[in-house]
Amino acid sequence: MNAVIDLLKQHRSIRKFRPDPIDQTTLNTLVEAGQAAATSSFIQACTVIQVDEAALREQLAECAGNQAYVASAARFLVFCADMRRHQLACEMHDAPMQSGFTEQFLTASLDCALFAQNVVVAAESIGLGAVYIGGLRNQPERVAELLELPALVYPVFGLCLGYPDQNPEIKPRLPLPVVLKQDRYDDGADRERIAAYDAEVREYYRTRTGGNKEMSWSEQISGMLAREARPHMLPFLQSRGFLKK
Amino acid sequence: MNAVIDLLKQHRSIRKFRPDPIDQTTLNTLVEAGQAAATSSFIQACTVIQVDEAALREQLAECAGNQAYVASAARFLVFCADMRRHQLACEMHDAPMQSGFTEQFLTASLDCALFAQNVVVAAESIGLGAVYIGGLRNQPERVAELLELPALVYPVFGLCLGYPDQNPEIKPRLPLPVVLKQDRYDDGADRERIAAYDAEVREYYRTRTGGNKEMSWSEQISGMLAREARPHMLPFLQSRGFLKK
Repeated sequence: MNAVIDLLKQHRSIRKFRPDPIDQTTLNTLVEAGQAAATSSFIQACTVIQVDEAALREQLAECAGNQAYVASAARFLVFCADMRRHQLACEMHDAPMQSGFTEQFLTASLDCALFAQNVVVAAESIGLGAVYIGGLRNQPERVAELLELPALVYPVFGLCLGYPDQNPEIKPRLPLPVVLKQDRYDDGADRERIAAYDAEVREYYRTRTGGNKEMSWSEQISGMLAREARPHMLPFLQSRGFLKK
Repeated sequence: MNAVIDLLKQHRSIRKFRPDPIDQTTLNTLVEAGQAAATSSFIQACTVIQVDEAALREQLAECAGNQAYVASAARFLVFCADMRRHQLACEMHDAPMQSGFTEQFLTASLDCALFAQNVVVAAESIGLGAVYIGGLRNQPERVAELLELPALVYPVFGLCLGYPDQNPEIKPRLPLPVVLKQDRYDDGADRERIAAYDAEVREYYRTRTGGNKEMSWSEQISGMLAREARPHMLPFLQSRGFLKK
């Protein structure tokens, strides 16, 4: 349809980068593009920590389950949902602060995602590749310590940025009628649509791995959901002052 | 830096639209651009409901606190975090499903935000305007009923799309050093930076409202935080099967 939509549709996560650096001016521009995203009720609850120190990077790579590119990518950013800033705003006006609401956790987290997605789009528009690192939530307590995050701040995810040294295929997405509904939720035909999609995903993995991995979408999802999903997250978030009510 | 970054930086929420329609092919393209965004562990947990029925639109506009553009915009989309789809995947393999984890709520919600932000960028790239409607969370129970959302699905936010019939100024954002930190969180200088920014925001509101509203960012935030933040959200989400542990 146009160059922007083509760019969006060409997204693939990049996990192998050339060593070429990304200068600070460029990084600032990307972060400013992130800031320009919509923000819920103007809260601007996203803080980005650019991690430059090699030792810190190594430790974060470890937290993320030894994803080496966390240490080696030209840039690594940690997106934090931040209500400490709002505490500051309240202090500036000697005003009481109501905190701990689920709604606040949600809006601060969503703010980070809107912001980060703009950063990714901006990065891809200048030829960079990116991969989100949800793995930081494997050990969020340790990440918070390493980055000296105060109360009311938590690491939502990381982001590796760099010039791509690989050219992976675009991963197929669910058929449009599964994700786009009209007027009401109706998944009556979704089981069949997912079955057809499963074959496509199986083929994608087969060709990408030279036959080593053959897995459908529903198999992958059902395998994942057989396990607990980071059960430490609720107590961790509550210890940071979130999700208390 | 380039046309894409310029586009991102020119974002403003649009709340007044021309009556011109957006055809279904165009809407499909925007939603496909949304699908192309990264998705946490390939969960693809976002479902979009395009609301076309006028009566339904009116009711949703009411839920959102009588925001008339919810009813009148060329298109109105509701972004839902959806784990019903994953339940289906488990059923397809007679597999047990672990649900209710905070981590799952978070990843499904983030998926919606990444998806939606791509839709917004794609929309703006073809000359459309957009505004997110968090106000649906005023009455999420009623929204869920109106859209017949099953368990494990909840409405994260709405999105109005249409051709702009206004040209608002870009709203100033926090100074870069407040939102971008290096290696560690340090807000030692933020109070002063926010005070400087406060003056900028006050001026923005003054000129935009012809002097009727003069409010700084920290005033606005502290005023908002004096009130409870949608305290119904936690019980609502738990009733949908989220955030139980």
